[in-house]
Amino acid sequence: MMDWEKVFATRASRMKASEIRELLKLLEQPDIISFAGGIPDVNLFPKAEVAEAYAEVLSGAQGDAALQYSVSEGYKPLRDWIVGEMSRIGITCKAENVFITSGSQQLLDYLGKLFLSKNDTALVTWPTYMGALGAFNAYEPNYDKLIPLSNREPQTYIDQASEKGGQVKFAYCVPEFHNPTGVTMTRAEREWLLDLAEKIDIPVIEDAAYQSLRYEGESVPPILALDLARNGNDIEKTRTFYCGTFSKTLAPGLRIGWVVANSDVVRKLVLIKQAADLHSSTINQMVIGKVAERLYDEQIAKIRKTYGHRRKKMLEAMDRHMPAGVDWTRPEGGMFVWVTLPEGMDGASLLAQSLKSERVAFVPGKAFFADGSGANTIRLSFSCATDTMIEDGIARLGRLIAAQKKAAA
Amino acid sequence: MMDWEKVFATRASRMKASEIRELLKLLEQPDIISFAGGIPDVNLFPKAEVAEAYAEVLSGAQGDAALQYSVSEGYKPLRDWIVGEMSRIGITCKAENVFITSGSQQLLDYLGKLFLSKNDTALVTWPTYMGALGAFNAYEPNYDKLIPLSNREPQTYIDQASEKGGQVKFAYCVPEFHNPTGVTMTRAEREWLLDLAEKIDIPVIEDAAYQSLRYEGESVPPILALDLARNGNDIEKTRTFYCGTFSKTLAPGLRIGWVVANSDVVRKLVLIKQAADLHSSTINQMVIGKVAERLYDEQIAKIRKTYGHRRKKMLEAMDRHMPAGVDWTRPEGGMFVWVTLPEGMDGASLLAQSLKSERVAFVPGKAFFADGSGANTIRLSFSCATDTMIEDGIARLGRLIAAQKKAAA
Repeated sequence: MMDWEKVFATRASRMKASEIRELLKLLEQPDIISFAGGIPDVNLFPKAEVAEAYAEVLSGAQGDAALQYSVSEGYKPLRDWIVGEMSRIGITCKAENVFITSGSQQLLDYLGKLFLSKNDTALVTWPTYMGALGAFNAYEPNYDKLIPLSNREPQTYIDQASEKGGQVKFAYCVPEFHNPTGVTMTRAEREWLLDLAEKIDIPVIEDAAYQSLRYEGESVPPILALDLARNGNDIEKTRTFYCGTFSKTLAPGLRIGWVVANSDVVRKLVLIKQAADLHSSTINQMVIGKVAERLYDEQIAKIRKTYGHRRKKMLEAMDRHMPAGVDWTRPEGGMFVWVTLPEGMDGASLLAQSLKSERVAFVPGKAFFADGSGANTIRLSFSCATDTMIEDGIARLGRLIAAQKKAAA
Repeated sequence: MMDWEKVFATRASRMKASEIRELLKLLEQPDIISFAGGIPDVNLFPKAEVAEAYAEVLSGAQGDAALQYSVSEGYKPLRDWIVGEMSRIGITCKAENVFITSGSQQLLDYLGKLFLSKNDTALVTWPTYMGALGAFNAYEPNYDKLIPLSNREPQTYIDQASEKGGQVKFAYCVPEFHNPTGVTMTRAEREWLLDLAEKIDIPVIEDAAYQSLRYEGESVPPILALDLARNGNDIEKTRTFYCGTFSKTLAPGLRIGWVVANSDVVRKLVLIKQAADLHSSTINQMVIGKVAERLYDEQIAKIRKTYGHRRKKMLEAMDRHMPAGVDWTRPEGGMFVWVTLPEGMDGASLLAQSLKSERVAFVPGKAFFADGSGANTIRLSFSCATDTMIEDGIARLGRLIAAQKKAAA
């Protein structure tokens, strides 16, 4: 969940604790139109099928095992299902390349634990998923700018990390319908990233949280698929760790995610998990496996239709209501539209005002930048918004931005 | 689950990889009588009630929320239930003092993350729960001997840690029916520990995994209860973190544990969890809460009866079958009997022989010692053993030990 206190506290010098408390209260009001949470719509959860799966697991031959301790690498039939699913997007792997975690967030923590020592450098996009920064920050790394793409010599990444007292340990990205920008990396950008990773010999963390949520345009091969193509389709020679999750497709409340990677890194991650929390919930892995087997494609189709419609509505509303000087992305999938406000406008101040006078919530963009830049950006999520919420909310927000722009002029 | 490869590899110089592989295969044979796993008996799981709770949660008003993301500190009604349960064992706290984790193993990892830097010292008992060593080892600490109790001056702990380049960060113990020894700390020992902790100003981690599993004798107040008594019953002034789990009482497969502590440390742990895996499974927290509310006492009574009977049977069999020169503990609860073999006998060698000729498995004690001592100890678990398994297994083991003793004489 969003750490709102932190979001507001980044402007600490200008906002009193009492004012922050007031805003936090406002956020909880039922009349607030929220484009804030990057969460799935509860109405799309396959609730009946999940209930059926729990009942079946517990009444069947697996019932005892479902409630018992289990192995750290994860439930084998679920790993087998993932192997099959991966092959559909160009990733050839075996069960020994698949490791189940408690959501893909846990994987980001484990990858931080495995690779980062204090003062090492992680390459991330600017902006990037704030949860990744949160996970990595525990290991006190520095960050260097991976994207926007540049003509930087590969050696400069190494030199800069060395100046800061460590090494470049990995590149992290969300190539599909990026959180927060909604942008998808082109095939050329993915190849550029793999070139860079090869040249400076680092792994690539491919956070594929939104992979299945494409609503238009042509799909691009996952980075791991391109990596495989470079290595004779031998996953043991690849350097990309593909992080998947059921949180955006089936249900986040069961906390099941996975990684696909060479078996050497999988073995190391399994040892980390064994020491850190033994294993992910046995019964939840069985239930996710059962539900995925039965209705994954159907569920994806349902989600695509609903979110795709909301994305379209939001982009149409933006076109109608946003004043000149405001820019935004046109994502082909995912949950987010990324808005760049006129220069000098502050996303957090706008949110404070918007909550009070417009009753509209969103996330100020600053929290997604490793260096705290990006004050004039905001993230809008359309995943839980109805047509009316979108039309009313974007109209109000456009009006407020126009008024602030006028006042500043 | 037990990392058997590691257990055997501690004797690496004397055991070939092929021999280890052979033993690992033997461990999986269905005719092996196992006293190895420290796991609950699947036959005692409240399977029907768990199934009913899943069905209720998913069909009721909570159904949507059960599948959605939730807060990092844990599901409030479950935390409220824990507050009530804690008050029954002398611990007065509020919901803000309770934090839900994915099993208590996760808490050990988080406490390591929060407190330990490389070269710091953790005080642990000799032997101690090997999973705690596993969790802490990720943060590269040193260990100093907390118990057996000694007359060491408190300052010596500080000095020794300082010589090793760090500070003493906490004391960790399993006061009730200790894993692996089965021993319970007396009230005097607990007070001694709190005295020490106060003098050198460190927190105490009270791992209460087996708290409810008492089969005879008088219960001793939890360390946190004694700490509260020293501090006017104000939990905010205490230094003890009480770690509980549903894994030994309801079911480990749902991965739900908790900590009770002052709210300052709880807040820090919540932030760690937010960055590390967001939150524990929402639906599993709801289900555990429902099941606990309905049948916790009944379930505890059932477990006590069964495990208590097995403990008695095992101690009787030990009395009958163990040769002179073998010592063992007489635990008042928990799952384990701790055996000290005649001096010079090696627990891992004994296991290798026992698997081959006697078809009996147990855990060599070495893995429970931070310094790899304790070669002549083994841990026997009675939690999953039937009367026949106990009688046959202990008889065979006693015979083997007697034969080895004779051969060595």
